Amino acid sequence: MTLVPTLSTDLGLPVTGLGAGTPGRGRIVLVGAGPGARDLLTLRALRHLQEADVIFYDRLVEADVLDLARPGAERVFVGKHVGAHAWPQGQINAIIVAEARKGRRVVRLKSGDPGIFGRAGEELEVARAAGIPVELVPGITAASAAAAALGRSLTERGQSDTLVLTTGTGAADNPLPDCVRHAAPGTTIAFYMAVGQAPRITAGLLARGMPPGLEVQIAVEVEKSSQRLLRCPLGELATVLARNGVKGCALILATWPSQRPATTAGDTIDEERGSAPHLSQDPGQEGAMAQKVVA
Amino acid sequence: MTLVPTLSTDLGLPVTGLGAGTPGRGRIVLVGAGPGARDLLTLRALRHLQEADVIFYDRLVEADVLDLARPGAERVFVGKHVGAHAWPQGQINAIIVAEARKGRRVVRLKSGDPGIFGRAGEELEVARAAGIPVELVPGITAASAAAAALGRSLTERGQSDTLVLTTGTGAADNPLPDCVRHAAPGTTIAFYMAVGQAPRITAGLLARGMPPGLEVQIAVEVEKSSQRLLRCPLGELATVLARNGVKGCALILATWPSQRPATTAGDTIDEERGSAPHLSQDPGQEGAMAQKVVA
Repeated sequence: MTLVPTLSTDLGLPVTGLGAGTPGRGRIVLVGAGPGARDLLTLRALRHLQEADVIFYDRLVEADVLDLARPGAERVFVGKHVGAHAWPQGQINAIIVAEARKGRRVVRLKSGDPGIFGRAGEELEVARAAGIPVELVPGITAASAAAAALGRSLTERGQSDTLVLTTGTGAADNPLPDCVRHAAPGTTIAFYMAVGQAPRITAGLLARGMPPGLEVQIAVEVEKSSQRLLRCPLGELATVLARNGVKGCALILATWPSQRPATTAGDTIDEERGSAPHLSQDPGQEGAMAQKVVA
Repeated sequence: MTLVPTLSTDLGLPVTGLGAGTPGRGRIVLVGAGPGARDLLTLRALRHLQEADVIFYDRLVEADVLDLARPGAERVFVGKHVGAHAWPQGQINAIIVAEARKGRRVVRLKSGDPGIFGRAGEELEVARAAGIPVELVPGITAASAAAAALGRSLTERGQSDTLVLTTGTGAADNPLPDCVRHAAPGTTIAFYMAVGQAPRITAGLLARGMPPGLEVQIAVEVEKSSQRLLRCPLGELATVLARNGVKGCALILATWPSQRPATTAGDTIDEERGSAPHLSQDPGQEGAMAQKVVA
């Protein structure tokens, strides 16, 4: 018996908001759901789910996150699944305001942390323009979850004192992604939603002087049941992503250490990392350096 | 009645680890406690607190976080309070391994996210070297909590597509902190533990071309009962920190937008932000642009 099933099934919390809501108490709460597994929700996020009259939710990785909500809460999917109905941002903005104006307690449930690549700014703005109380509940962002799943730290005293979170995109007329200029010894870069940009990013990082043999780690669908963890030298990133069919929801981590001598092309990757409990050689990838999580 | 008191007082979870532990089941879990408020713990963190035989904890902002642990768990403070006993890192490394070797379930509870400026790397390394199973549980990092408290996003489509987390330190022989080179239009920088470095950081950012009138926000003791939120132009950062007696635990946020025209020295700060529910003019700071949270 663990806590999480208890919470989801029989906590017996008071039901505080039935029906159409009470004028004047309407509010909007942008809630970070974390990367997917429902036990990475915070207690604060849970409380808001249990107080909500209506929940507008993104592509939430593990569907049972919504089971934590108050049974009477209305649940509306507004996310972007492949092939599924997706709401334009303007329509989301309009409906959360309209619902709060009715006096309903609106939860806008977003993957990760709403403040990091979560487009929270637009929803905060429309709520404030409408005079509706709005609150943000932070969530575990994908870089933190990916590092934890990989069993590594994102910063390391004397080796990597700066962490850069970026999407790896840039102006179309720029031959290199804007983020490339952040690559330097002493820095860890976490690339969000950047799989499609991988060839361009790799070229940019190599042009910046990042060693092609440097280890890069990839957390695919982190904290979802489909989670996979891969690693390879920077120079093979695009190949490894393609060979493993990685698309969409993946986080790429690259640490360029400041102190230890940089590895160079052709160097063997430090295999000590492979002793981490989460990683092992992928038997389906003989000869490749990519590794997968053990199911 | 809210969920959190329920969890802390009468959940009645099974007590699974009394006494000296069972040989062979010893393990170490590095658990992120988030920024301070106990309702920003994740459900996973809570579960580990409730399964622990012994908990080694850092300076934890709200002491009642530990009330969430299993009543029978041993609690050992190893943090660095001003004037309080502090353990050297080597001693912490040694004792967590020794306790896990006895078969005890060790929780190492750290503020924020253990993977971001949390020295998780060293503890992971000693655990692995000793052959002890070790796991990381991510936590809400201070930048996410600060942004949520300030009611703002850390990224903004088209304005700030990259987020840099840094401590603002650098080699002693370098006149500028290493992080300064990350300052550029389109970037938000979050400075951790950088209050003492503020004059040096400000000089570096200004030298880099960041406009002195750009708004900087400061979250002091975020998500603790002593939380204060301040804002001021970049050029006044050091003065405002000193005037408000800000020391130690504060996060500084600076967004240099890529699209809108940069503000310049002497410009009035956009007062629209003041309409956020958390911020209001500080009556004790007439003439200053610093603002405080409303208690």
